[in-house]
Formats: sequence, C-alpha cells, structure tokens
Amino acid sequence: MTQDPQPADEVLAEVRDDGVLLLTLNRPDRLNAWTRTMQRRYFDLLEEADRDPRVRVVVVTGAGRGFCAGADMAALSEVGPEDFDPDERPLSLATRMRKPVIAAINGPVAGVGLVVALFTDVRFAASEAKFTTAFSKRGLIAEYGIAWLLPKLVGVGKALDLLLSARTLLGTEAGELGLVDRVVPGDQVLGSALAYARTLATECSPASMAEIKQQVYTGLDSGLETATADATERMIAAFRRPDVKEGIHSYLERRAPRFPPLDGSPGA
Amino acid sequence: MTQDPQPADEVLAEVRDDGVLLLTLNRPDRLNAWTRTMQRRYFDLLEEADRDPRVRVVVVTGAGRGFCAGADMAALSEVGPEDFDPDERPLSLATRMRKPVIAAINGPVAGVGLVVALFTDVRFAASEAKFTTAFSKRGLIAEYGIAWLLPKLVGVGKALDLLLSARTLLGTEAGELGLVDRVVPGDQVLGSALAYARTLATECSPASMAEIKQQVYTGLDSGLETATADATERMIAAFRRPDVKEGIHSYLERRAPRFPPLDGSPGA
Amino acid sequence: MTQDPQPADEVLAEVRDDGVLLLTLNRPDRLNAWTRTMQRRYFDLLEEADRDPRVRVVVVTGAGRGFCAGADMAALSEVGPEDFDPDERPLSLATRMRKPVIAAINGPVAGVGLVVALFTDVRFAASEAKFTTAFSKRGLIAEYGIAWLLPKLVGVGKALDLLLSARTLLGTEAGELGLVDRVVPGDQVLGSALAYARTLATECSPASMAEIKQQVYTGLDSGLETATADATERMIAAFRRPDVKEGIHSYLERRAPRFPPLDGSPGA
Repeated sequence: MTQDPQPADEVLAEVRDDGVLLLTLNRPDRLNAWTRTMQRRYFDLLEEADRDPRVRVVVVTGAGRGFCAGADMAALSEVGPEDFDPDERPLSLATRMRKPVIAAINGPVAGVGLVVALFTDVRFAASEAKFTTAFSKRGLIAEYGIAWLLPKLVGVGKALDLLLSARTLLGTEAGELGLVDRVVPGDQVLGSALAYARTLATECSPASMAEIKQQVYTGLDSGLETATADATERMIAAFRRPDVKEGIHSYLERRAPRFPPLDGSPGA
Repeated sequence: MTQDPQPADEVLAEVRDDGVLLLTLNRPDRLNAWTRTMQRRYFDLLEEADRDPRVRVVVVTGAGRGFCAGADMAALSEVGPEDFDPDERPLSLATRMRKPVIAAINGPVAGVGLVVALFTDVRFAASEAKFTTAFSKRGLIAEYGIAWLLPKLVGVGKALDLLLSARTLLGTEAGELGLVDRVVPGDQVLGSALAYARTLATECSPASMAEIKQQVYTGLDSGLETATADATERMIAAFRRPDVKEGIHSYLERRAPRFPPLDGSPGA
Repeated sequence: MTQDPQPADEVLAEVRDDGVLLLTLNRPDRLNAWTRTMQRRYFDLLEEADRDPRVRVVVVTGAGRGFCAGADMAALSEVGPEDFDPDERPLSLATRMRKPVIAAINGPVAGVGLVVALFTDVRFAASEAKFTTAFSKRGLIAEYGIAWLLPKLVGVGKALDLLLSARTLLGTEAGELGLVDRVVPGDQVLGSALAYARTLATECSPASMAEIKQQVYTGLDSGLETATADATERMIAAFRRPDVKEGIHSYLERRAPRFPPLDGSPGA
C-alpha cells in the first residue's frame, strides 16, 4: 500500500496474512464523518486492493465508536452546487470490484455513511448500532443511488419508510429488514466480519466470486433472458479455468481447496 | 376541499392543522367496497391535496370496521369488457404524487382495495385485519399493476403465493412478509398512522420527500447508472433550495426545522 | 403420461384425481443428483403437464431423503466446454408454464438442484433440509439465471451472501430469508405441498393462475406503465371468459367454484 502524507490517515489499511484487507475509516473524534479526502483515499485503497494478488476479500469498519456519521456537517454547510465533480468515482464503486467487500458496522451510520455501507456486498452490524438515512431531515435528496438500491435490499415499502421519515433504527431492526445480513453484539462485529471474510478467502474461488458479483449486480438491471445467456457464456468460460477442476477434486478428495488468486488486471 | 353533492360522501376529507389530510373511504355498510364514483372522488382528492400548500402528508383509512373489501360484487357481476375506460387515472396515482400517502388499514382489505393500499407509500395495519388478493378465486387476473408491484414489496415467491392462492392472511403475517410496514392493535392503527404522518409533516422537508418519492418509484424501472446520474442532478438542485440550509442549521442549532411548503403546481 | 424405457425412471410422474401431478426426482441413492437425462425427462413431463387438461397444478419433490444434491459430481468432473448445448430448454422452464409448479423440498438441495427449486412458483421445505448454492466452492459461476432470480426472492444483500459464501443453511433460515415460502417438519413437507396444490386446483381459476404467472414473471422485467397497460388488456379479456361469472356467482352463492380446465394448447 502506498503511504500518502496526511489524508492517508483518514482510512487505515492492513493486509492480513489470510488474504483479507482491513480498511478502517479513521476520524474517530468525528464518528468518521465523510470527507472528500476520505472518499478519495477509500476509493484508491479499493482499487489498489482489486489489483493486489495478496488480497482476496476486503472488510471495512470504523475507528472508535462509530462507523460513519454521514457527511461532515461543518463541511456540508459550506457546500454549493459548484462543488460537485461529475467525474468523481461513484459511491457504488465497491460493487464494480472483483473482490467481495464486507462491512463491519460497529456503530452509528447515517446519510452518505449508510450509502457507503449499503454499496458493500455483505453487512455485519452491532445490534445497538444506530442507522438513519438522514436526508429528508436535512432537506437533501436520496443521494448517490440509495433510492435505487434500497428497494432491492428491503422492498419498496420499507425503502420509502426509511427514506421519507429518516427515522433512526437499531442494528437489530436493520437485520430484520434485510438492511444488514448479520447482527451480533457490538464487541463481536469486527471479529465476525473478519471470520466470514477469511472463509471467503480460503474456501471460495476468487474467480467465482468475481463472476458472481458481476452477475448479481448486472442482473439487477437486466432481464432473465439476458442473464441466462450471460450465465451460459460464463459457465463455458469457467470450465476453461483451473478453479473448476480444483473445486471438484477438493470436494471429492474431502480436502480444503487451493484456488489461484486473481491476476493484477481488474479491467480484463 | 370542494363539496360535490352526493358521491363526495364516498370519500370523506379532513385537513388537520398539523399538515395531515385524512381521507376516509366511506361506504361502511359495504366494508367500503370500491365503486367507480369512489375511485373518482379518491383520485380528485389526492390531486387536490398535491396542490394544497396546507397539506404535507395524506393518510387514507376506511370508515367502520373495514378498509376496502374490493370491487363491489353486485356491481362487478354486471360489468362487461365495454366498461373499461383506458383514460381513467391509474390505480397507482398516489405514487405519482409529490406528497407521502400513508395507509391505515383498519380492517378487511381485498382485491382492488389491496391494490389501493399497496400503491400508497407506507402502510400501517391492524394485527387482525384480513388480507387477500382475491383475484384467482373470482376468475380475474392480477389487476392494475399489482403483479408488478407485489414482488418489489415481498419478493417474487411470496407474491406468487399470495396471487395464485388468493389465501387470506392476517395483519400480523402481512407485517412479517413486508406487505405492510407497521402492525398494531386495531384500535391504534389510525392513531399510529396519523402520528407517523405528523412526524413527516413537521420534521421532514416537503421538497425532500417529493424528490425521494420520484427517485424510488422511477428507480424501480431504471438502472443504477441512470439513477446515479439522476441523483447527482437532484443533489445539485437541492443545494439551490432553502431546505438544505434550514436542515443543516436546525441540526447544528438542535432545534425543530421549519421547512417551506411545496408550491401549488405539482406538474413542475 | 408416456412411458419411456429407462431414463424415464429418473423422474416419476403420478396424476392424482384432484388435478395435481406429482413429479418425483428419482435417483435416491445419489440424493437425486441432476443429470442430463433427468433434466430432459423433467422438462418433457412439465411440457406434457401443461397440455394435459387433467393437470391443474404440479408438485415436484425428491425420492428418498434428498431433494436434489446438485449436478452429479462424477459426471461433472468429465464435463468440458464443448458439452453445453445452447438449444437446451432453460432451467427456468417452469416459469413459462401456464400451471403453477410447487416444490416440496424434502431434504438437501444444492447447486443446480437449488436453481430447479427456485424456478418453481411456491416452495415448501423441511425445517432441517440443508440448502447451499455450492457454486463458489466448486470454482463455478452462478448458474442458469440464479444470479438474476435470487435478489428478487431474498433481496440483493442476502443473495450475495448466499452466492459468494456458498454457506449451508437449514430450511428454517431459508424460510426466514424468503428462499422458501413455508417451513414444516420433514415428514409433513410433501403432504403440506400437496394440500396447497389441491387448494389451487379446486378453488382457483386455471385461467387466472395462467395469467398471473405470466404477469408476475414478465413484470420482473418490465416497467409499471407497461405492466398496467398489460393488466388492462388482460382484465378486458378476462371478462370474456366464463371464469369471472363463475367466480362471482360461486362467491355470491357461497359455494365452491367449478372453473373450466385450460385447453391443450399452451402456446395460445
């Protein structure tokens, strides 16, 4: 990982020896409120991780007692329409990655912080963590594609409830709604997410996971016929990769699989 | 609200001083069975509400012990193919409004009555209220877009179960499935819905809610890229409205926000 | 039903006198692992059922203690890219049928077996049945459209969790997620599915169910406006069929309906 002088500290990165990269949003005195520099650093680290053969899975969490309290209010109060850069990478960047991104929501998550969490692939949350969309109480709109994503996570009724009211809910209810995928006591959320990530890194084919991510996200915008034809092409290609033979043989031989890493060129 | 002579009584309207309009389907001796005049009156009142700056949120409920028992069977038995007016406003009209519409499902809801309830934004239901799609038991089809909407509320498996079997379920199960968003004892359903509506009317920006409704419903038919580009445009526009400053300042000053009402031209 | 010599035995067919056809995947010594001949036989039987006026509803289950353990591993280990026939009927074939197909998942279901189960309309499962997508652990991709379907059943977060991790879950959790629609003790799963199928066969209009299936599945790929216009056309056509009059009259007369069967030409 490259070391930039200062803004680098807004997101910490640690490559673990089990193939898991841990990213930590790191402005703990502000509940990790989102800034432009934090966003750039987070996106740079994601793109780097997608190229790094040592990394098979990414976990993102927050330093201190929060995950991400949304846009920094002090900064936001000075924002004008001219401050939007249409060439900025989209908040959904993690969905374009080949490697799974798991969120460990350790504490409060709001506004753009919630968008960041929802655009990861699988979410673990502390049962007492507070969730809110926040936008309607600030005069804002449903930002960055959350209006598109939320109904696909929790159904359109719950999506409207959460977005219109901006009510605060706890991790437990977030789990019941499908906003998050696992709910655990706060002191176990990072450990549980890391254990899940390790399982993906050691038991699941990186090539399979890359294909599956693309299939699921593109499938949200395509029809059944397109998705089926696409699956057939991908299945034929899969039989040309070593992963299938390793997957079948390790199964028949009742041993752990040894899947090759993805190469360094995500664009391929 | 204008006062028509007779059919007006099929839906009662009351503007409350907290910015909430209460609409009551009013044929209690027929469990508020749906008629053509009731539909016209309901739609007229919704369109009026969308233009009325006093109204920020609409609640719809049923008079007496039912919400809406579906099409009036006596009337339906005389309907022929020639009775359909393709220029009639769609049952999904409430989804096109700028203002949130909340259903307080106080009792039985069936057939077209269920379609009306599902095309509101957020639903409160009595735990003992009976729900049924009804169509397959009457030789009918899935009417007015419910076949499109239901999988987006409860998933495609549950949607097929409910539509194919037309089985009756109670409010409690409706809540578990996501068909409704809150389940309360029958004597609290209207009160709970009105309290929720009041919160939207007093704490949430009318402009935000109008944008969010459009974003969520158009997002059901668009892709992520379109939705993201649309969100960027709306966010830039939002920063030109007074609501954002008021939302941020009221937050920083820890006081209730004072958001301006929507103006009188919904088409804008 | 025609009787083919050998491969016919891989799926057993029994037309019951209540209008329900029971199909049984029948390789019990291999947990009914999927083979090419089983697939052809299953599809032939589905197409035959759709033409047979005696059949109103289909139930599919597995012989012995499993439902379908996925592709036969011994066979799969010898498959190459050249083995894919793009003209094969799609795994989603049951969704194109006019008649409801109900799955009774009596035991383990994995990989392509899960795809088969998910492409039925309504699912009953044994509480202890084991479910897994399996693909990522075998180096495979999300096969045959499951990446498209799964988010529409359980939401995109759970879909990614199940597909990326290929973790094993039990029927009870499958029910909580919406992967299946009813969870019962293992010895009741077939009985419950058959009872439900009988209700559809005796109380629900075959024409209505055919329309509803088409509406729901095409609605997953179309917008609200298209779906609404389509519903209007279908409603007008419905009023020309005898089913509506029978549905209304049987209701007003408080008696069981006698709906006519579908004719023998599914393509109509």
